[in-house]
Amino acid sequence: MPRACSVANALEVVGERWALLVVREVGLGVRRYADILARTGAPRAVLAARLHALVDAGVLQTSAYREPGSRERLEYRLTDAGRDLLPVVTALREWGDRHAPPDGGPPVTLRHRGCGEAVHLELRCGCGPVTHRDVQVEPAVQPRTS
Amino acid sequence: MPRACSVANALEVVGERWALLVVREVGLGVRRYADILARTGAPRAVLAARLHALVDAGVLQTSAYREPGSRERLEYRLTDAGRDLLPVVTALREWGDRHAPPDGGPPVTLRHRGCGEAVHLELRCGCGPVTHRDVQVEPAVQPRTS
Repeated sequence: MPRACSVANALEVVGERWALLVVREVGLGVRRYADILARTGAPRAVLAARLHALVDAGVLQTSAYREPGSRERLEYRLTDAGRDLLPVVTALREWGDRHAPPDGGPPVTLRHRGCGEAVHLELRCGCGPVTHRDVQVEPAVQPRTS
Repeated sequence: MPRACSVANALEVVGERWALLVVREVGLGVRRYADILARTGAPRAVLAARLHALVDAGVLQTSAYREPGSRERLEYRLTDAGRDLLPVVTALREWGDRHAPPDGGPPVTLRHRGCGEAVHLELRCGCGPVTHRDVQVEPAVQPRTS
């Protein structure tokens, strides 16, 4: 039987490249369909389906806007659950920067607004930084259901 | 034009749920095709294609083994580039534990072998931990090509 797993459950929501590219864009402050379409390069029908699914999953929220002479349209923002996906995007970015950068090298740097230094993801416990080699995966103690 | 982006490049390699579930399993020490098949629940043809693509992409490496009376088969291990994907899996696990845990709650805990404490991913700069809200995304300075 497949493993009951939070990784698999997360991938039910974002286990498809366009979904994560939408989270990247909206996380960067790109809110409108036409802009998300242009920046991701997603096929139109796929993008419409992903936006809909991400709203249903509670990752994106919408609000209406209307430009003069146009019909009402939707803008997209990350919910709190959507913002919690940004570490996934950052982990992918760090891997891509190291192992598959675009021509010319990593295109952006993430900096802390406070100090201007580059930020990075770190796996840590109370001791400080650890590597995945130092990690043991333990079955959690399940509460009794009887 | 779509953004030139390390996130998109990473998703060219692992932008599909079965690819990341394979990385999860092999990262947990599951090496053989039949076991990976059982633990991921991937369709056979999809799994064979993903394993092949992940070897081609330098994420997995193979070695041969033979059990008595059987033909030679392949075992899979993470390469260094493959191990560098574990933070992506951990970020997905943390999101799933929080927002979409299996019935009964998060099924596993990741602990540091040294101190036994739970580990977690943290976004940090020289100041200490920061949140994605504190982060500014800056175009990297590109080296001159002339």
